Amino acid sequence: MDIAARISSGQGDFLLFAVTPPRKSTPAERLPEIARATVERLDHLDLDGLVLYDIDDESSRNPEERPFPFSPTVDPAEYRADHLRQWRTPVIVYRAVGKYQGEHLRSWIADQDPGRTLSVLVGAASSEASPAVSLAEAQAMSAELNPDLLLGGVAIPERHSRRENEHLRLIAKQEAGCRFFVTQVVYDLNAAKNLVSDYRYECASRGLAPVPIVFTFSVCGSLKTLEFLRWLGVDVPRWIENDLRHATNPLAASLEQAAATAVELIDFCRRLDVPFGLNVESVSIRREEIEASVELASQLAGHLRR
Amino acid sequence: MDIAARISSGQGDFLLFAVTPPRKSTPAERLPEIARATVERLDHLDLDGLVLYDIDDESSRNPEERPFPFSPTVDPAEYRADHLRQWRTPVIVYRAVGKYQGEHLRSWIADQDPGRTLSVLVGAASSEASPAVSLAEAQAMSAELNPDLLLGGVAIPERHSRRENEHLRLIAKQEAGCRFFVTQVVYDLNAAKNLVSDYRYECASRGLAPVPIVFTFSVCGSLKTLEFLRWLGVDVPRWIENDLRHATNPLAASLEQAAATAVELIDFCRRLDVPFGLNVESVSIRREEIEASVELASQLAGHLRR
Repeated sequence: MDIAARISSGQGDFLLFAVTPPRKSTPAERLPEIARATVERLDHLDLDGLVLYDIDDESSRNPEERPFPFSPTVDPAEYRADHLRQWRTPVIVYRAVGKYQGEHLRSWIADQDPGRTLSVLVGAASSEASPAVSLAEAQAMSAELNPDLLLGGVAIPERHSRRENEHLRLIAKQEAGCRFFVTQVVYDLNAAKNLVSDYRYECASRGLAPVPIVFTFSVCGSLKTLEFLRWLGVDVPRWIENDLRHATNPLAASLEQAAATAVELIDFCRRLDVPFGLNVESVSIRREEIEASVELASQLAGHLRR
Repeated sequence: MDIAARISSGQGDFLLFAVTPPRKSTPAERLPEIARATVERLDHLDLDGLVLYDIDDESSRNPEERPFPFSPTVDPAEYRADHLRQWRTPVIVYRAVGKYQGEHLRSWIADQDPGRTLSVLVGAASSEASPAVSLAEAQAMSAELNPDLLLGGVAIPERHSRRENEHLRLIAKQEAGCRFFVTQVVYDLNAAKNLVSDYRYECASRGLAPVPIVFTFSVCGSLKTLEFLRWLGVDVPRWIENDLRHATNPLAASLEQAAATAVELIDFCRRLDVPFGLNVESVSIRREEIEASVELASQLAGHLRR
């Protein structure tokens, strides 16, 4: 069963891989070969879907200096339409709704085939921003223009650790039309388990069926990547930082940890009967980190499908 | 190699089981049968040692009401001498030093065979208490009267999460004579890994050899046990609380989680070359929780010795 059918029927057990489109500054003639390299690298994994992020300048979210300077990327919807036609399974296209004019979003939403495209709509990075289209408006557009288009929302276990209400935010998003959630990168297993558990029992008490939560994993092989993850709000544990400074093979250690965390979450979600998906994110542009991400996805595919 | 020889040479890979002596109110004629039941229950595990806790009224540590009223227990040194002579491997006897008069501690320390007894000396629960013997005085006594007696100290990963200096406290204890450390119950894997990692790299930068860290695990099968663990300062995650309220078999879930955490810590310590031991603590007096603790120890023995 494909991912859209699975999500429509509240089922999980799927595997995604997430990439960021190339920078806007990339010469146009290089885009096809970059897309082809991505498809070739991922083809053998038999993924249930590809995730395309939409990178916003999140500097309004965080007053600290961004570890990597912000560099606008190709619009994920255009990149997909122009260069990823050969991708076989559905694509989950992120849309940072604050970046777009209403008409642009409206026509894109109306044009999508719900069997081939899913979308994660992301609100403005800061509540102070006043975007042309709000998240609620984008959700309403989708319900009106393309009611079968499956919309996802963002889930942040770290926020649950601090405020203990992320499960209620998920349920509110679900009531606003979200049919699945995607987390940011998970390093803190207990935080993720706490969120799943609170969400599951809150759903039960309201007579709601839980929707799939897609857990995102990545490898972290350099201090720069670590710094960037932290800037994005991920609690990357200190031992990983120490590994990066001292260990002979921190990338292997990070891969092993991500796989172990994923396996525990799989077992946990199965036990609690919460549908889940897995998403491997390639954060860095370093070749060895990309290859380690592919290896992580391969290990998780093996575990999921055995 | 027995545990004293291992610790003396900075090696780990040993398995302990921890019990609390019976309450002082227990009729004297029942003590031998309680001790015999403990020995019989644990005999097949082929443990490297038995830990005997020394329960203090820790109400000075925590202004909240104690979930189980404090009930004084038999002195672990007396219980061991009077009723556990048939125990084959060494015993690690806790001494809450603030409870004892100097002369009592002095003669006990002098009398111990360092091949049969190890001791964890625990300071007063609150820095406001003014005990007859301080922790530093007890350590000095031991160095003077029985220099081969192996002393351990307490390690608290949760404290490391809050203050980020627990590794420095361990090194200070090590310099004061501690030859191993025992943690409180570990539920937060990242906190434990962070402590191990910071400790290991701080030792390396000072040219010190790390000493074995014994990680303690327990099962939690009732809300009362959970409440007590939290009162003791253990961060028991919310998902375990939810399990206890809702799941059909929370004890099995807790056992599975403790085993998975232990296995990850074993792999982590081996990778970082930090010697470690495992300790399974039976917190509760409920039969099914005791049996689940024995099962946990059996699983960990299998993993450690395979």
